[in-house]
Amino acid sequence: MSKAKAELYFVTDSTGFTQDDFLEVVQQACDGGVTLVQLREKDKTGLEYFRLAEEVKCITDKYGIPLIIDDRVDIALAVDADGVHVGQSDIPVYVARQLLGESKIIGATAKTVEQAILAESEGADYLGVGAIFPTTTKVVTHITEVSTLNAIVEATSIPAYAIGGLNATNMHVLYESKASGMAVVSAIMKSSDPRATARKLRQLVEANFKVCKS
Amino acid sequence: MSKAKAELYFVTDSTGFTQDDFLEVVQQACDGGVTLVQLREKDKTGLEYFRLAEEVKCITDKYGIPLIIDDRVDIALAVDADGVHVGQSDIPVYVARQLLGESKIIGATAKTVEQAILAESEGADYLGVGAIFPTTTKVVTHITEVSTLNAIVEATSIPAYAIGGLNATNMHVLYESKASGMAVVSAIMKSSDPRATARKLRQLVEANFKVCKS
Repeated sequence: MSKAKAELYFVTDSTGFTQDDFLEVVQQACDGGVTLVQLREKDKTGLEYFRLAEEVKCITDKYGIPLIIDDRVDIALAVDADGVHVGQSDIPVYVARQLLGESKIIGATAKTVEQAILAESEGADYLGVGAIFPTTTKVVTHITEVSTLNAIVEATSIPAYAIGGLNATNMHVLYESKASGMAVVSAIMKSSDPRATARKLRQLVEANFKVCKS
Repeated sequence: MSKAKAELYFVTDSTGFTQDDFLEVVQQACDGGVTLVQLREKDKTGLEYFRLAEEVKCITDKYGIPLIIDDRVDIALAVDADGVHVGQSDIPVYVARQLLGESKIIGATAKTVEQAILAESEGADYLGVGAIFPTTTKVVTHITEVSTLNAIVEATSIPAYAIGGLNATNMHVLYESKASGMAVVSAIMKSSDPRATARKLRQLVEANFKVCKS
């Protein structure tokens, strides 16, 4: 396996933001150096989700950063996003793969080794593994230990990104892990300076993660 | 325009049902003679919606009745449904058409002549027009008069199905209208005998609607 740079995966949460303020955070995060963006909307109508995805795609395209859409394969197709992320309560990975074809990225949430192996077998390109820490953006019913994250990486051949309550203060728990990167939501969304936060997190991720899979 | 039989369009609402009880109602409605089924789910996860769509497709296939999926084009594609229905808060008709191609049915909700003309221009195959009466299955913010329904039919060349609080008692308001059929939710979902109700509604629709468009 070749040495690769670790990813800083920015997962959005527009709750409580005006659209302009939300897009400003996305823009700053991209400018600060996130390497992947996932638009994740749970409460928007299909029309709102589609329109917002169009706007976010304009930003990520400007920075050449891949855009992943959470859950809605149709919206990913509609805006020609780079891929889709499916959780355990979304449509199955194999269905997403049938609809998207081989050229798009499909990410899957895995909380256990069994879920990770299944997701890879159904065609997932990467895994989101967590929650490593409790988070305010989702109801967390299951904490995934770093040891489980490492076991998932050992059991699969696709990159795994740690997610769940991660920030500059606690991310050191991943430095000795096998994660290929770190995903953050609140650390950037709730930052008073999203650009600076993204820049700092990117530096920390690249300096400290020992990536063997990408 | 040729004389055609009026449609009885059954739009589902699984709220409050166990899955088995819900599927039993769908089965009885098909057996009773509905001519179209729309699976409409607003609160289910993507996985739940997909799994339920698979189950409903087995029933509608058995009866040779077209299955339309509300809102989620990806789920319509995933289960090879006959089409999708999009409301004013769902992804636009032209986007659904791009994703589904020409062979699938696309229905659109229209409350006004302007919405109807736009939907047809974007590629809709039929219109759901209402709410004709207040309904308990949706928050109704706009009542569409039968005169507006008639104006919509005059202004477009695709069939229009009346929807909203319709049942055997009040459907006579449509007998002199230009609707190509009637859509019902509660009239069947909340019936103590869905098969008999579907049969009766089908008879009333076919006997009394003056369909000139199909």
